[in-house]
Amino acid sequence: MRAARFHDRKDIRIEDIAEPELKPGHVSIDVAWCGICGTDLHEYLEGPIFVPPKGEPHPISGEEAPVTLGHEFSGTVAEVADDVKDLKTGQKVVVEPYIIGDDVKVELGVEYQLSENMNFIGLGGRGGGLSEKIVVERRWVHPIADHVELDHAALVEPLAVAHHAFVKSGASAGDVAVVGGAGPIGLLTAAVLKAEGLTVYVSELSEARKAKARETGVADEVFDPREVDVAEEVRKRTDGKGPDVGFECSSVPVVLDMLLDAVRPAGTIVNVSIWGFKPEVDMPKLVLKEISLVGTIGYAHDHPRVIELVEQGKIDLAPFITGRIGLDGLVDEGFDQLINNNEHHVKILVNPNT
Amino acid sequence: MRAARFHDRKDIRIEDIAEPELKPGHVSIDVAWCGICGTDLHEYLEGPIFVPPKGEPHPISGEEAPVTLGHEFSGTVAEVADDVKDLKTGQKVVVEPYIIGDDVKVELGVEYQLSENMNFIGLGGRGGGLSEKIVVERRWVHPIADHVELDHAALVEPLAVAHHAFVKSGASAGDVAVVGGAGPIGLLTAAVLKAEGLTVYVSELSEARKAKARETGVADEVFDPREVDVAEEVRKRTDGKGPDVGFECSSVPVVLDMLLDAVRPAGTIVNVSIWGFKPEVDMPKLVLKEISLVGTIGYAHDHPRVIELVEQGKIDLAPFITGRIGLDGLVDEGFDQLINNNEHHVKILVNPNT
Repeated sequence: MRAARFHDRKDIRIEDIAEPELKPGHVSIDVAWCGICGTDLHEYLEGPIFVPPKGEPHPISGEEAPVTLGHEFSGTVAEVADDVKDLKTGQKVVVEPYIIGDDVKVELGVEYQLSENMNFIGLGGRGGGLSEKIVVERRWVHPIADHVELDHAALVEPLAVAHHAFVKSGASAGDVAVVGGAGPIGLLTAAVLKAEGLTVYVSELSEARKAKARETGVADEVFDPREVDVAEEVRKRTDGKGPDVGFECSSVPVVLDMLLDAVRPAGTIVNVSIWGFKPEVDMPKLVLKEISLVGTIGYAHDHPRVIELVEQGKIDLAPFITGRIGLDGLVDEGFDQLINNNEHHVKILVNPNT
Repeated sequence: MRAARFHDRKDIRIEDIAEPELKPGHVSIDVAWCGICGTDLHEYLEGPIFVPPKGEPHPISGEEAPVTLGHEFSGTVAEVADDVKDLKTGQKVVVEPYIIGDDVKVELGVEYQLSENMNFIGLGGRGGGLSEKIVVERRWVHPIADHVELDHAALVEPLAVAHHAFVKSGASAGDVAVVGGAGPIGLLTAAVLKAEGLTVYVSELSEARKAKARETGVADEVFDPREVDVAEEVRKRTDGKGPDVGFECSSVPVVLDMLLDAVRPAGTIVNVSIWGFKPEVDMPKLVLKEISLVGTIGYAHDHPRVIELVEQGKIDLAPFITGRIGLDGLVDEGFDQLINNNEHHVKILVNPNT
């Protein structure tokens, strides 16, 4: 079968590889759509980061580069192992793409996303969504209702990142949020917050992204920090108090500063972005306002709720899909587009069968 | 009566001023002992910070420099207003030294320390503990049992800062803590954590402070970051996991880095120190470990529990009192000692009657 394989930085190849074999406790999936994630771009431009380099096999998967890419995918069940009784051929599914030790229990109360040597399917080994087929452990396979389109279903994974940030913020319906940055993860975070009943203000510089935040309806209002003092505008709309929660989705220090300025005393800021450096943080403000700054990575126990929101039509995913390409176009029409024309894209989906 | 008055930076004078008048709802207190706080030192060296400068009266107290200093004090009730029925002359008391708007309710669930224009008695006006007498609103006066020495009682206020940090950490008996820095607030934080049943590891460079942390028994172990990797040592003692909570008591960036390295995944770091600048923070680590970094300022609802711990003898305060001076010695024997010989001092107490 054909697969996109990460060999090294700037060296991703579409290759023919053997189909993965079904094993006990596993499910074979025909991949329908796979999104390209910012993490994939980082691997391409600066990697290997999550990908285990050649000669340094991952302690859980035992694999090293080259590995198949792609961790935001949907598909249909092609075949199940004899001991898997609760999934049927043809069932639509999405995958929670974790590589986590067999000893880690995936049950409520366990923050399995923080377990030792955690990695992701499609980065750390065990195949990926950028191939025609993948075999996945049953525990990571989530069924999704038949009426959900498979291209929409491919967005469940990044939505789970956003939902995890929402959960970690401690916010609930009726609260007020400010989202710093309306790139893909900022927009999806705003979408989840809106679906969960929050009032959402978005701060963003880019014209294209401001337009997207407005037309998708995920923001009650969108502010441009070049035009207004965002913290001040949000305070005005919250009786002078400030929003309950902030979401850092930009990895830009001035955005984090704005959030520390904006949120109410004893408010929470959740960091959803990935930082490649150590920024200066306005600790004096964090202290005087008793703000909680909370890190998040991945998701845990978020897929069921996200699938529910998508099945109920609480999040309109169509406007977030800004491109559909085949596997051969992955670098030219996918990665390069996202790098050079990133303001105009949210999510480019790849159909690995074309 | 005599009082220490802050006129301006490096200009603190011992002056004769009128005795404060008792008002309805208020209590007149004969001050016994008043500690010198790091905040007082900052006012002296770099102020006015909390003190309202001349010509800029504080919006709640209506006062401006010169103001009487001192917010860590104990004393006995000299007189109560007619409408104060629950305190008697001669009763030992400590004061929760807030200046907070009359509209703010001091009841459970209200984070009154974060209310608008909050300031402190002894900095923002309304007299101070560095004078013979003070008149305080009833709601800020906490009785303390007769068997507690008044010099020990003067430490209730900084202990409340430490207790507030403990509460905000979410930790409980049986948890493991690492305290970064064994200055006055680090030592008192360790003391509260120990009294609340935690295992406490302390990181400190100074020989004198290491010795103090050891001899006071507030630390299970004390590590010197020049000699060992503190995070690694604490991990070894927690089955490789790391401590549940960290307390930043140094305002030194490498100490914050150490805490981010040390605490377990999903752990909490409480900032107890005051930062005069914006440090670089290891956000990548905060993100990948889903750490919560929590600011704290002052206290709220902490005095009753701290008084209980002190009354029950759960914290031995004697070793933290490293000097006793009279009001005339405030600058020479107090401030200058704490500035030039700070490693050897924890708390210098002033008796404003001598």
